[in-house]
Formats: sequence, structure tokens, C-alpha cells
Amino acid sequence: MAHLLPVALEKLIDELGRLPGVGARTAERYAYFLLKADQHINTSLSTAIHDIHSLVKTCPITFALIDADETVSPLYSNSDRDKTVVAVVEEPLDIVALERTGQFKGTYHVLGGAISPIDGVGPDQLHIPELLKRLVDDDVKEVIIATNASVEGESTALFLQRHIKDAGIVVAISRLARGIPVGVDLEYADQITLAHALEGRRTL
Amino acid sequence: MAHLLPVALEKLIDELGRLPGVGARTAERYAYFLLKADQHINTSLSTAIHDIHSLVKTCPITFALIDADETVSPLYSNSDRDKTVVAVVEEPLDIVALERTGQFKGTYHVLGGAISPIDGVGPDQLHIPELLKRLVDDDVKEVIIATNASVEGESTALFLQRHIKDAGIVVAISRLARGIPVGVDLEYADQITLAHALEGRRTL
Repeated sequence: MAHLLPVALEKLIDELGRLPGVGARTAERYAYFLLKADQHINTSLSTAIHDIHSLVKTCPITFALIDADETVSPLYSNSDRDKTVVAVVEEPLDIVALERTGQFKGTYHVLGGAISPIDGVGPDQLHIPELLKRLVDDDVKEVIIATNASVEGESTALFLQRHIKDAGIVVAISRLARGIPVGVDLEYADQITLAHALEGRRTL
Repeated sequence: MAHLLPVALEKLIDELGRLPGVGARTAERYAYFLLKADQHINTSLSTAIHDIHSLVKTCPITFALIDADETVSPLYSNSDRDKTVVAVVEEPLDIVALERTGQFKGTYHVLGGAISPIDGVGPDQLHIPELLKRLVDDDVKEVIIATNASVEGESTALFLQRHIKDAGIVVAISRLARGIPVGVDLEYADQITLAHALEGRRTL
């Protein structure tokens, strides 16, 4: 059974198998695609992967991802953005999701994860001290906690709320609404979501 | 909306989106994983992708994939393999699937695809003349047509069967059995598969 595939192809399949959610079959499919692709496709993908660390860095204020030649996230330095409203998110890509709504004109703060004792992530590993500093420095009026609707996201939201109050900082704290997503029939909504939707009902 | 993500990250997402079956969300997930991965992971994946074309070539006899420093597929040159039995497959990875059964001791021939007028693939683009040459050179006794169970695979099997006969080559031609896969309940088998299973029933 040894040596069914060329050594270099086995190696490429192994390397591709490190990507999240990619099993052996998918890695084989990607590898075979790359084997048949033009070299220029391989070269540009290869270069993009190799150089990503040196071309991207983290904003020292908001912890959003920025280009290596920028000093601060343009979503913070831009004078059109309201620095007194801060949306707190878990990961940098969450910013993209919120920006796509086109509804938010405040600034962002990336925690760098959520509190998760199982994964060994405590509040100390998150960018919480930097958030508290911003709340004071920028005279922030509202913090919108936009962590995920998971157990970890909820715990983190609760922790943040208490932590900000304990620090004696007076600021409005809100959380993204929970309810029925657009396009979903009532009968298919799970009971926790439905309970949240009832609790958060709005007067018309 | 411009410049939500660093330019280098957008570029990496675009490049990863070329992989088969990878949409924008999956590409974002891969890119974010690579951004957080150690540089040595990125370097080895990057190198494996860049070098794959120069390290892998096609066997000139069987058209299986081989290492660049090999001359012929070891599955052909190995004296334990019976050169008078040839399994004809569409793609190089099909060999891996058949080898995993551990049941086949013959040799392989990769067509390089299947006849598909819609995709503009005719018999001329497949390695059929090379197969006919092998049938004569190696005094082949049996050809097992192991193309896919798709319309294209069936057409190719039919074409090959006629083409070999028209060339006046006397050889036994067989096709992989069609029937109910292991572990599948009768009630879930589709009617064509069931018809094949009935047609190919075996006396006990």
C-alpha cells in the first residue's frame, strides 16, 4: 500500500488537511485541483499564504486587523465614526458582518475571543483593560456588546457588564437583540430563540 | 464600505476562493485560520502548493501520477503486478480508491477524464491510443473498465468496448459491478441502482 500517490502530492494533501473542517477527501480534491491548475494560480496562492503574517497586523487601539503600513484602524481614525459608541466583538471578522449592515456609525473593539473555561480562555486573555481605557479616554457614552449568541458569548457579555460597572465607569451598556431571524417560520424557531423573541417583543 | 479588511487578507480570501467548492465564507475561515497559524505552517503549505507542479509528473505508460524522479509508475514496474490485467480509470485518484480495496493485483490505465460532449471532451482528448498499444504490447487478457457510474462514465465504457473490438484486439472486457452499496437499506436504494442489482444478481 506504500507509495500510492507521489510523495509531494501526499505532502500537499497533508498540509491542506490542516485547514479547519477539511478532511482527507476534501484535501485530496483541493490538491488535485492545484495539481491541474496553471502555475500562476499556485504561485499567487502560495505567496498570499506565505506573506499574510508580515502584511497584516492588529490595530493597537481597536484590535481590528489592519494593513502592516497602517498605524490605526481606519474604522477608528475616520472622523465620520462616532468614537463615543463602541461595539464590542469577539473576532475581527465580526466587524465585517456588522459593517455590511451599513447601520452602525460607531467604532469597534475586538476582544480576541470569548471567556471559555473549557478552552482555557479567561478574562485575562481578552483585550478588556484596553476597552476600559478607551471608555475613559474617548468619553464613551454607549457600549454595544456584540459577542456571539453562544454560552461563551453570553458569559462574556455578562462579565463585561459587571466589570465595567465595578470599575465605576458610567456608560450605557446594551446587547444585540435576540429573536427570530428574517425568513424563518415560527414553527421552525427553537424554543430558546422564541422565548427571547417573546421577552424582547416591541410595542407597535 | 471600502477597506473593511486589510488588503492582503482580502487577497488571500480571493485566492482561497478559487479552490473547488469554496465559497466566500469558507475562504474567510481558511484565511483567518492561516492568519492565526504559526508561520511554519504557512511556509510549508505555501511551499507544497508552489512546488507541486515541478515535483509530480505523469507516468508515460499508465498516466498515473508519479514523483518527478521516477520514470514509470511503481504500480506498473513492480513485478508482482499482473500486466495482463488492466483497470481503466478516469482520474489518477481513482487508482487510490481501487488500491485501498487490496483486491486488485493488475495494473492501471488513466484515461484523463471521460467523454463529455457538454464539456467539450471527446475520445481524442483521452489516453485511448496508448491503452490500445498496451493491450498489444503487454499481451493483455482482461480490461476492467472502472469509469464512474455517471452518464459520462457509462458512455466512455461503451465507447471503449466498441473501440477495442473495432481495432480487432481480442481481450476480455468487463465493467465494475453495479448494485446496492454495503450498508444501504433496499427502501433507500434508487430504482436504477435496484434495477442494476436485479440484473446482476448472483446465484448462491
